[in-house]
Amino acid sequence: MIRIVYFPKIGVPQFNLPFTSLRSALADPEGLVWVDMVESDADEINRVLVNQFHFHPLAVEDCQSDGYQTPKLDDYGDYLFLIIQSVIGEGSFEDEPTRELNIFLGKNYLVSSSLKKITAVEIFRKRLEKDERLYQNGSDFLCHALLDRVVDDFIPHLDQLEEEIDYLEEAVLSNPDPKTLERILRLKRYTMTLRRVIAPQREVINRLCRDDFPMIDPYSRMYFRDIYDHLVRIYDLLDGIRDMTTSALEVYLNATSLRLNEVMKALTIVSTIFLPLSFVAGVYGMNFHYMPELEWRWGYPMVWLIFILIVAGMLTFFRKRRWF
Amino acid sequence: MIRIVYFPKIGVPQFNLPFTSLRSALADPEGLVWVDMVESDADEINRVLVNQFHFHPLAVEDCQSDGYQTPKLDDYGDYLFLIIQSVIGEGSFEDEPTRELNIFLGKNYLVSSSLKKITAVEIFRKRLEKDERLYQNGSDFLCHALLDRVVDDFIPHLDQLEEEIDYLEEAVLSNPDPKTLERILRLKRYTMTLRRVIAPQREVINRLCRDDFPMIDPYSRMYFRDIYDHLVRIYDLLDGIRDMTTSALEVYLNATSLRLNEVMKALTIVSTIFLPLSFVAGVYGMNFHYMPELEWRWGYPMVWLIFILIVAGMLTFFRKRRWF
Amino acid sequence: MIRIVYFPKIGVPQFNLPFTSLRSALADPEGLVWVDMVESDADEINRVLVNQFHFHPLAVEDCQSDGYQTPKLDDYGDYLFLIIQSVIGEGSFEDEPTRELNIFLGKNYLVSSSLKKITAVEIFRKRLEKDERLYQNGSDFLCHALLDRVVDDFIPHLDQLEEEIDYLEEAVLSNPDPKTLERILRLKRYTMTLRRVIAPQREVINRLCRDDFPMIDPYSRMYFRDIYDHLVRIYDLLDGIRDMTTSALEVYLNATSLRLNEVMKALTIVSTIFLPLSFVAGVYGMNFHYMPELEWRWGYPMVWLIFILIVAGMLTFFRKRRWF
Amino acid sequence: MIRIVYFPKIGVPQFNLPFTSLRSALADPEGLVWVDMVESDADEINRVLVNQFHFHPLAVEDCQSDGYQTPKLDDYGDYLFLIIQSVIGEGSFEDEPTRELNIFLGKNYLVSSSLKKITAVEIFRKRLEKDERLYQNGSDFLCHALLDRVVDDFIPHLDQLEEEIDYLEEAVLSNPDPKTLERILRLKRYTMTLRRVIAPQREVINRLCRDDFPMIDPYSRMYFRDIYDHLVRIYDLLDGIRDMTTSALEVYLNATSLRLNEVMKALTIVSTIFLPLSFVAGVYGMNFHYMPELEWRWGYPMVWLIFILIVAGMLTFFRKRRWF
Amino acid sequence: MIRIVYFPKIGVPQFNLPFTSLRSALADPEGLVWVDMVESDADEINRVLVNQFHFHPLAVEDCQSDGYQTPKLDDYGDYLFLIIQSVIGEGSFEDEPTRELNIFLGKNYLVSSSLKKITAVEIFRKRLEKDERLYQNGSDFLCHALLDRVVDDFIPHLDQLEEEIDYLEEAVLSNPDPKTLERILRLKRYTMTLRRVIAPQREVINRLCRDDFPMIDPYSRMYFRDIYDHLVRIYDLLDGIRDMTTSALEVYLNATSLRLNEVMKALTIVSTIFLPLSFVAGVYGMNFHYMPELEWRWGYPMVWLIFILIVAGMLTFFRKRRWF
Repeated sequence: MIRIVYFPKIGVPQFNLPFTSLRSALADPEGLVWVDMVESDADEINRVLVNQFHFHPLAVEDCQSDGYQTPKLDDYGDYLFLIIQSVIGEGSFEDEPTRELNIFLGKNYLVSSSLKKITAVEIFRKRLEKDERLYQNGSDFLCHALLDRVVDDFIPHLDQLEEEIDYLEEAVLSNPDPKTLERILRLKRYTMTLRRVIAPQREVINRLCRDDFPMIDPYSRMYFRDIYDHLVRIYDLLDGIRDMTTSALEVYLNATSLRLNEVMKALTIVSTIFLPLSFVAGVYGMNFHYMPELEWRWGYPMVWLIFILIVAGMLTFFRKRRWF
Repeated sequence: MIRIVYFPKIGVPQFNLPFTSLRSALADPEGLVWVDMVESDADEINRVLVNQFHFHPLAVEDCQSDGYQTPKLDDYGDYLFLIIQSVIGEGSFEDEPTRELNIFLGKNYLVSSSLKKITAVEIFRKRLEKDERLYQNGSDFLCHALLDRVVDDFIPHLDQLEEEIDYLEEAVLSNPDPKTLERILRLKRYTMTLRRVIAPQREVINRLCRDDFPMIDPYSRMYFRDIYDHLVRIYDLLDGIRDMTTSALEVYLNATSLRLNEVMKALTIVSTIFLPLSFVAGVYGMNFHYMPELEWRWGYPMVWLIFILIVAGMLTFFRKRRWF
Repeated sequence: MIRIVYFPKIGVPQFNLPFTSLRSALADPEGLVWVDMVESDADEINRVLVNQFHFHPLAVEDCQSDGYQTPKLDDYGDYLFLIIQSVIGEGSFEDEPTRELNIFLGKNYLVSSSLKKITAVEIFRKRLEKDERLYQNGSDFLCHALLDRVVDDFIPHLDQLEEEIDYLEEAVLSNPDPKTLERILRLKRYTMTLRRVIAPQREVINRLCRDDFPMIDPYSRMYFRDIYDHLVRIYDLLDGIRDMTTSALEVYLNATSLRLNEVMKALTIVSTIFLPLSFVAGVYGMNFHYMPELEWRWGYPMVWLIFILIVAGMLTFFRKRRWF
Repeated sequence: MIRIVYFPKIGVPQFNLPFTSLRSALADPEGLVWVDMVESDADEINRVLVNQFHFHPLAVEDCQSDGYQTPKLDDYGDYLFLIIQSVIGEGSFEDEPTRELNIFLGKNYLVSSSLKKITAVEIFRKRLEKDERLYQNGSDFLCHALLDRVVDDFIPHLDQLEEEIDYLEEAVLSNPDPKTLERILRLKRYTMTLRRVIAPQREVINRLCRDDFPMIDPYSRMYFRDIYDHLVRIYDLLDGIRDMTTSALEVYLNATSLRLNEVMKALTIVSTIFLPLSFVAGVYGMNFHYMPELEWRWGYPMVWLIFILIVAGMLTFFRKRRWF
Repeated sequence: MIRIVYFPKIGVPQFNLPFTSLRSALADPEGLVWVDMVESDADEINRVLVNQFHFHPLAVEDCQSDGYQTPKLDDYGDYLFLIIQSVIGEGSFEDEPTRELNIFLGKNYLVSSSLKKITAVEIFRKRLEKDERLYQNGSDFLCHALLDRVVDDFIPHLDQLEEEIDYLEEAVLSNPDPKTLERILRLKRYTMTLRRVIAPQREVINRLCRDDFPMIDPYSRMYFRDIYDHLVRIYDLLDGIRDMTTSALEVYLNATSLRLNEVMKALTIVSTIFLPLSFVAGVYGMNFHYMPELEWRWGYPMVWLIFILIVAGMLTFFRKRRWF
């Protein structure tokens, strides 16, 4: 699907410009064109990226590749090529957390391309129809606005991660079963994956606000710097969540050994009480012919007294040692 | 709330300058103006930061954002924009340890803004009324004095952290219960959070004393260098506290397994003494018709002798192995 | 074995050029020569690398050394010397994961040399016969195509690693025996070894796309950049696999202590039920002359009632503690 | 206490120069003055550092501060200000390991100041009276000689640390009690603290031998380089000691679990021998009317035979499993 | 011991040149002199290094110091001073792994000095007599050849380390006793020490092949680069060995807890079988007057049937849980 928006210098922006008018729109150096390609097949890719824009074959290939690609920024002179990762943001914390967005930034155009629909781009599209400030400052500002949208999408997702870790921190204390362990480890791995996405993404934006590119106005750099700050903050948050998963893991492992302690104490208390009792009972179960106690009138009650003394003594001992 | 202080080159400083006189005060290039905004709503922000000072929209937005923001320094040419974190400093070691202070530093003015009251700023305000040296050296020196106050506030808070870790180091030895574990982990996480605040703050101050900004006098740089040294020291202290929490954690985990050892030893000692005793008693409880010992005159005392020998032998064995 | 391919500027490429024509082919500055040496003995090495090309003795020595050599790039002015590691890619994850490929890159020639056959080179050779684009852009592009082939070979091998770790992640939960531990540790070590191969290889390619070498066309650099991106991605994947082996190890160790917990619980439950029961039975096995219960009509059933009460009480207690 | 030494270009050095002659001594550009202030109160500090030398207020404040200060080097143009940490070097490995020494290095003077007496300075003072080479090469060489003395003091202290770790490495094997754990952790923390002192100290000296200061002769730099090498070595040694404490900790924790193993084995051996024996004895303690074995002539000896067989079988089993 | 070799530009090299001819040999700018000092006393050091060569006092002091010194490179203008560590290479993996070699490299001379005999130097000396290429390319090449010999000596020693780790990896599985633990920890520490020697040594050689020194011919730099590659490889190998010791440690600790599991299982199996059996026997050992089972004709065989059922049931349960 190819969606073209044309913002002439003066006049009303044309959403849904037909493909046939693309060439003439691009010929207007004062105007601004945004070509958004979603779920495009090889034919569309060919028509737009190769025949119309003559982008470098490697960049076009990157747009078509469906494996994970690390965020990067390639400077092809006339245009910049960016690979950006946009968060998917569902609550499962499994598999790939992000979806790839490819962006070509030229003097008077912006081309975005993704193999699957990206929520951030759709939302951006809708805001564009209402907010004219977004496209009145040239392609670099439009690009900044799109990237800002993509990066802001990470924040609510990180809130989900924080909720999960909050839940897990309680769960390891109240209910430390293997399911909890699995969730901790899954969250930890997910966080690590996300960090490996954010780190190069941060570097891409850093280059946009630091390096000197002809299609980026020095004034706009401050805006990219703002996105950069957000990414630094996101990275910090991920660091915090990773630390918390590590702590949760430590508490979990400790809870396991605390449980073992509890079980062992129960065993020890029962054994150390009943083994002596059984011994005493065993003594008076012996069949010696000459055992004076057996014939005593108060022998039997006396043994019960011994039993009670043993139990009381043991319980006192355990209490002193604070075993229960 | 907007509080304006005006220090003319010559004459008495005017605390609580009315907002209407702000413009004329700023027009005096020899004077110095400090605008302090606390808990300001959108309207006040607009009136001062936008209409009066024409600060960059992104910086104004940063002043209004209520999420955590990493300390940073943005150079907007005519003025510097700083985000600084001031410690809250209560003893709970939970949640966010700091509160954000935004500072705009211009040639002849200093604007500070915070969403909530910051103790360090209030104290600074009071000192300002007494100590004229603070405002007689220009806006850069005033800014240094304010930052110095903010950074010095961390020191007593770190003392609290050290008290906590001192307490915990004793607690893990005397009373290693899960509550102690929780406090250790909370302190560790809090320390890590604080480190992530201090590290970029240190870098902000480092740039102030290293880079060449027109509104900072070369002579004043040495003073920022002094603040930088304090932050390096604070960071070092946090490193030390983190190491100590890690050690406390190790002792805690070891205490848990030492307890298990102690319990197991008790069980083992009782079992290995009474199982043989019970066996001997069981033997003479058998009902064989031909058991000569049963009919012996001294059979029963002999068995008691055996009992005593077994107990003595076992105790000797345990002592030798140093089990108690 | 020496295999020479000669691509004249105009005309049909000559696969299997005889060694005697090598000199004249090299004299053609417009042509392109690829000399591929596999399993060459000292004599062949001498004839080609020393007598024909006069390569530096150290580089020639590196080609002959059969120990592992870290990937590197040496600039000898007229030619570049590269040591590249190509993955072997069998499923055992033991020993050396790679085989060394030595490449000399000159203005109009490419010399590759390896002590053993390398699959990637053989496949590249076959593709070369079909795809003329590979040799029509000079020696740097030919070199890029060969390196691309070598690096792409790592991808399916990494898939094998991911399959292995997926299998192991399940195995540590379902069947945590020492064999599983061994496989986890082997995979971890293998991954670490591979990382140590990829990291310098990445740097070699980075220098090819970044530095200024006379035999590499600025236009070709973008292609080396593409290989570099692949290596960055491979390194990221290895990082991910390493994290996953660490997690698997943690689950494994926890599974071991969970098993211990399970065993201890069984012991504790049986002991705490039967020790009291045996004690009661022991009491009524005593031989005191005056034990009124023994003569009661319902004494024996009453004892069974006691037995049942004890068992029921204990089971209730265990259930409450959620021990089973 | 103020101690002034004056070394004229020609003639005898004047130890204990009266304070009143300080000004004239400093006026001699060919001479060299060393002012050593120990345990000076605010008045002395004021008289010397402020009124006489006019040092920067921040540097003077640093001299008076009694908290720990990170080693640093501040360049004030006419003079350098150094904060150096000198080791105290007692054997307890608790609290602060160092004492602060402040040094001002000018063209023809050296001012040292410390809140408490520093052994290295006292020793240096005595050597100065005997060794004229120390003061014949200007203030930079004198400063080098003092720093050399301070840094060399760390070496015997590190030997103490190595002795301690050697002792602990044996103790964890022979006597792994909680006291040993505490000493290991204390040594580890102490080593970490010392590393955090040495690292910035090394950087201070590195700047002295690398940067271009007017009061340091290029020829003298090589001598500072020598001190730098010593500090690098000290840092390496501390790294080694830290690694060894970590190893000792691992052995300690393992020793704890080995002890548990030993205890459990004893329990298991006794239980698995006596539980079957008691069962057999219990069988023949039953009161069934029809139990043929009870009436056998050799029934009782036969049971003893069974007892012996059970014990022998169990012991063989344990031996085979190498349990003792 | 002073051994002097003189290689005139033309003519036969003079091994064992008398000391008296050293001055004239050095006066020949075309010739090359190698002075090798082994186990030299202060007098020899003085005669050669101080009186003849006038080396810097600090460098001479470094030659005489007998503590460990980190490898370094000092540029004294006319000559370079290197501290290099040569491996001792015995199989014990204790104490210091290396011996110090001091090298002075001048335009037409090479001075090597060591407190104890170094095997690599002795072997180099012998090769020198046979291989004239080593001294025909100037002092820098001679120095390279010596360093090459020293660095190559590490390789067989690393093979010893790999043999040790291979042995230990098997030992932790087959025989995980404390001796094995000790050997693992010793190897780990030894590897760490060696890494701390190799890292600065690598940097020394890196400077030799990267920086611009007058006594090193640009052509020779490639040879130093070759040594550098070897050191990079050695460092990589040490990293690998360290990883393997860490793995071995993990397997060892796991083996300890596996053993505990095995012991506990044995205890549990025996207890859970015999405690119920003993209870049943205890029941029929009670002395109640009215116990109908006691008088049954088949009571006793019935009890044996119960015994057998209990054992069979328990064994089935254990098998199902895969406890043996």
